[in-house]
Amino acid sequence: MVKDKKPKRVAPRLPRGFVDREAQDLRAQEDMLATIRRVYESYGFEPVETPVFEFTDALGKFLPDSDRPNEGVFSLQDDDEQWMSLRYDLTAPLARFVAENYESLPKPYRSYRAGYVFRNEKPGPGRFRQFMQFDADIVGAPNVSADAEMAMMMADTMEALGIPRGQYVIRVNNRKVLDGVLEAIGLGGEENAGRRLGVLRAIDKVDRVGVEGFISLVTNGRKDESGDFTPGQNLTDDQVNTLIPVFINTAAVGVEFGVRDGVLFTTEKSVLSDNEHRSRALNVISSKIGAANAAAALDHDDLNAIVYLLEYVSGSSVGVEGVWQLFDAAAHWRAAGYERNRIKLDLSCVRGLEYYTGPVFEAELLFDVVNEKGQKVQFGSVGGGGRYDGLVSRFMSQPVPATGFSIGVSRLMTALKNLGRLETEQRTGPVVVTVMDRDRMADYQAMATTLRAALNADPGKPPVPVEVFQGNPKKFGNQLQYADRRNSPCVVIQGADEKAAGKVQVKDLALGKEMSAGITDNAEWREARAGQETVDESELVAAVAAILARQAESRSA
Amino acid sequence: MVKDKKPKRVAPRLPRGFVDREAQDLRAQEDMLATIRRVYESYGFEPVETPVFEFTDALGKFLPDSDRPNEGVFSLQDDDEQWMSLRYDLTAPLARFVAENYESLPKPYRSYRAGYVFRNEKPGPGRFRQFMQFDADIVGAPNVSADAEMAMMMADTMEALGIPRGQYVIRVNNRKVLDGVLEAIGLGGEENAGRRLGVLRAIDKVDRVGVEGFISLVTNGRKDESGDFTPGQNLTDDQVNTLIPVFINTAAVGVEFGVRDGVLFTTEKSVLSDNEHRSRALNVISSKIGAANAAAALDHDDLNAIVYLLEYVSGSSVGVEGVWQLFDAAAHWRAAGYERNRIKLDLSCVRGLEYYTGPVFEAELLFDVVNEKGQKVQFGSVGGGGRYDGLVSRFMSQPVPATGFSIGVSRLMTALKNLGRLETEQRTGPVVVTVMDRDRMADYQAMATTLRAALNADPGKPPVPVEVFQGNPKKFGNQLQYADRRNSPCVVIQGADEKAAGKVQVKDLALGKEMSAGITDNAEWREARAGQETVDESELVAAVAAILARQAESRSA
Repeated sequence: MVKDKKPKRVAPRLPRGFVDREAQDLRAQEDMLATIRRVYESYGFEPVETPVFEFTDALGKFLPDSDRPNEGVFSLQDDDEQWMSLRYDLTAPLARFVAENYESLPKPYRSYRAGYVFRNEKPGPGRFRQFMQFDADIVGAPNVSADAEMAMMMADTMEALGIPRGQYVIRVNNRKVLDGVLEAIGLGGEENAGRRLGVLRAIDKVDRVGVEGFISLVTNGRKDESGDFTPGQNLTDDQVNTLIPVFINTAAVGVEFGVRDGVLFTTEKSVLSDNEHRSRALNVISSKIGAANAAAALDHDDLNAIVYLLEYVSGSSVGVEGVWQLFDAAAHWRAAGYERNRIKLDLSCVRGLEYYTGPVFEAELLFDVVNEKGQKVQFGSVGGGGRYDGLVSRFMSQPVPATGFSIGVSRLMTALKNLGRLETEQRTGPVVVTVMDRDRMADYQAMATTLRAALNADPGKPPVPVEVFQGNPKKFGNQLQYADRRNSPCVVIQGADEKAAGKVQVKDLALGKEMSAGITDNAEWREARAGQETVDESELVAAVAAILARQAESRSA
Repeated sequence: MVKDKKPKRVAPRLPRGFVDREAQDLRAQEDMLATIRRVYESYGFEPVETPVFEFTDALGKFLPDSDRPNEGVFSLQDDDEQWMSLRYDLTAPLARFVAENYESLPKPYRSYRAGYVFRNEKPGPGRFRQFMQFDADIVGAPNVSADAEMAMMMADTMEALGIPRGQYVIRVNNRKVLDGVLEAIGLGGEENAGRRLGVLRAIDKVDRVGVEGFISLVTNGRKDESGDFTPGQNLTDDQVNTLIPVFINTAAVGVEFGVRDGVLFTTEKSVLSDNEHRSRALNVISSKIGAANAAAALDHDDLNAIVYLLEYVSGSSVGVEGVWQLFDAAAHWRAAGYERNRIKLDLSCVRGLEYYTGPVFEAELLFDVVNEKGQKVQFGSVGGGGRYDGLVSRFMSQPVPATGFSIGVSRLMTALKNLGRLETEQRTGPVVVTVMDRDRMADYQAMATTLRAALNADPGKPPVPVEVFQGNPKKFGNQLQYADRRNSPCVVIQGADEKAAGKVQVKDLALGKEMSAGITDNAEWREARAGQETVDESELVAAVAAILARQAESRSA
């Protein structure tokens, strides 16, 4: 037997659902995160960071879209037999952190954090097993005013990122309203908790699965394109017919009765004119807060929505409480100047997570994009959140109310790219000191050091990269090709002749490209030595600085 | 049986070896990373990021201090049965990335990345299972000039972070020199690869285990304080006696012969005067590069070191090659103005990792700190690296030379804190709009919105946080306590009386503290209403801005 001494070659590849990220993308993300951070800081939020691992029991079973807990998470057993999991969101770890450090934290505790989360799921287009979220939360804030503030901060974040007003909206709903409607169709009580969650998830999916998909999900179950079957919630025809008009704007079931622009409407039931609507709404609401306040606080559409909602949840006390919370939140936004084109009530906003207990919100981008099937669709959600009063108190003997939201960083980046709001042009690359004589590497390195120090003296300005060509210097053409590939502004050249004469050549690559465009003859080109100049060694820094300045000027012109 | 309906409370805790990190620490780290990034960018390096998971076989078995591969890593099996691991450093994933994207990358490929790495090890003081590294690498650079550049960049990084010259040094050695010495004592050849690595690790540990520990490690093995046993390398007395003076500056074995300040010396063997050393060194080196160059390129100590090294490795061609590489690197540093107080040759620098093939370097901080045992010790290493020509080519059919280094981010942060070089003072906190009347939350929110917009109009300045108190507003004292806890510059107060009069109160908390220091009488205190003023609602922004300006001025005074 001959022993094969050559080691087996390993295939360079990543597990599915994981990706590498390169310079342009990372720099754009860095800028985006800095903008978001600035908005959060301006609202008094502070950074905090937790590790990627938590004990599995501390994370809880709160994965969206997963009826099989632990299926969606990466877990492993520690040496001491305890199970640990990689976090699947940033909310569960925050709840653990706050409970663990409750005494030492300021209360309310405003915090933000960006970090990777992990889902052990089937990856797909735009669906990864490691992705970044950017969250903000207020823990210890019991009132709707905190939820209202989160929605405002989301709206401010969208605009700070350059998304124009009208291209985004923050949709707000309240789990209590949803629970009220479900109670009204006989799904109240603890014994129906599972079915309620199933129906909520179905409502959440209407955008993706359509009305027919929705009906399948709440009745007999649905098989998706990949063949996966989601069990149904076995609602009756009557129950479904009551739900449809509340959550879906469609004529599919024969009645035009649903949500349009955040306002519930019907063409059959409604016999009131706009003015009648308004006066009726004012009557209902004035009984709670006084006529003058009601009229001043809310706009016309808000009032309409509130009145309809009160009708839908009539008979459910939790539903009525939810409606008044929505009303209260709306009053906050309108008083602070956030109109319906920025934050609106929208009953079809659900958020799939089990742990929400009150207001829920979602940041939706309204411009069209083409999806992987070639269809034109609205861009849709880039993040959301809500109130989760039970999550911290899982760890504690006292109730700890909390509200927060999460932005999907890569989805938001995709959106900003679509809007042309991310600086995606390549940065100016390094000044490259080329190598004409490989025995003089130390000299070239010294030249680079001098240039680097001189060109980076001002720490307030962006760094100016300077490097020696470190590849195989044999073919000079490769060095110029490298400089070109790196988007280099200029190269420095010193051969034996120049060295002997105390000279050095500097070649402006941008100017070279420009000039070569006007030169057709090969000989003429060599003659012109486009963009190339020879200077004294002592003038090297000044010559390079002049080229950089010239290029900066021509870029800004 | 009575069913207990109360859910079991979960203990809020983290698995051992993992930690949470709060605002001050994160902000200091952010500043530090930005400084490092700036240095790397100025050398032409670009960011790149890989995911935390890799296929286990792609990572390879290159953990330092671990003779049991896979013991030190977190691994789990994917649905398709393939093993994945969390990266334990950033070098192995980079090698995979470069191999996978070889055609599309510029060559040489200069890149940097900061990220968490994971070690499934016993945690200890300052030893975590998740920690951050910040790496820079040049792939496709075959020559020593690239290694020399990495050492220069490390030195520049230390100074950019505010570590004064003289408080740090970059120690450089070459694996080929080490291999040459080992060959000289009969440990050459593939059959001794394991023992060579064992001896290198022992040399690497001399600082920690002392000379006796070293002798145990290279002879019969060593049991550490925790009872763990490391098997020995079974060297003979003669072999050990040859090694000791090369790597250890000690008289423990009867001969004063070792390394001092990077220069090998002996009191027995050396009969040459300094001048004789110098001329002999020049003779040796001139035969390679010419007398004038040799004299100009290296300082006295460098020359001495080179001569001694040539003696030690005589008979080993790989050793001689290593010495000339060290010489070549030293010529680079001295030509570029990096003297021995910044970068020095040091034979005791080993780096434990198996994959290094040439130059190795280590950034060492020289100031004293007190360790967990209360002993005064040198702070020591904050990072290091070296040439790893075999790591990328594991994946490829061609050789791909590479060199790079890694900084231990949390260790470096600890060092900078010790030096007082990290801004650890608390930032100015949020302007807090207090809540006197909980039915008027929307009004307070509107006030905060106005203040926030006005005070954050200039995106070039740091954000000015403004927030409404979102806790339970019942006790006003709690609100002031909260403001104090958050280091708030001032609070805004509007009760029913002020509202009716169109007024608002603004309280300067810094001034309040100052004034209260001079007031001893309780009644006098209330009278003075320290730092508090009442202004028209329309003057609120101006009043708050004036307080912020006053405080900024007094801080900078």
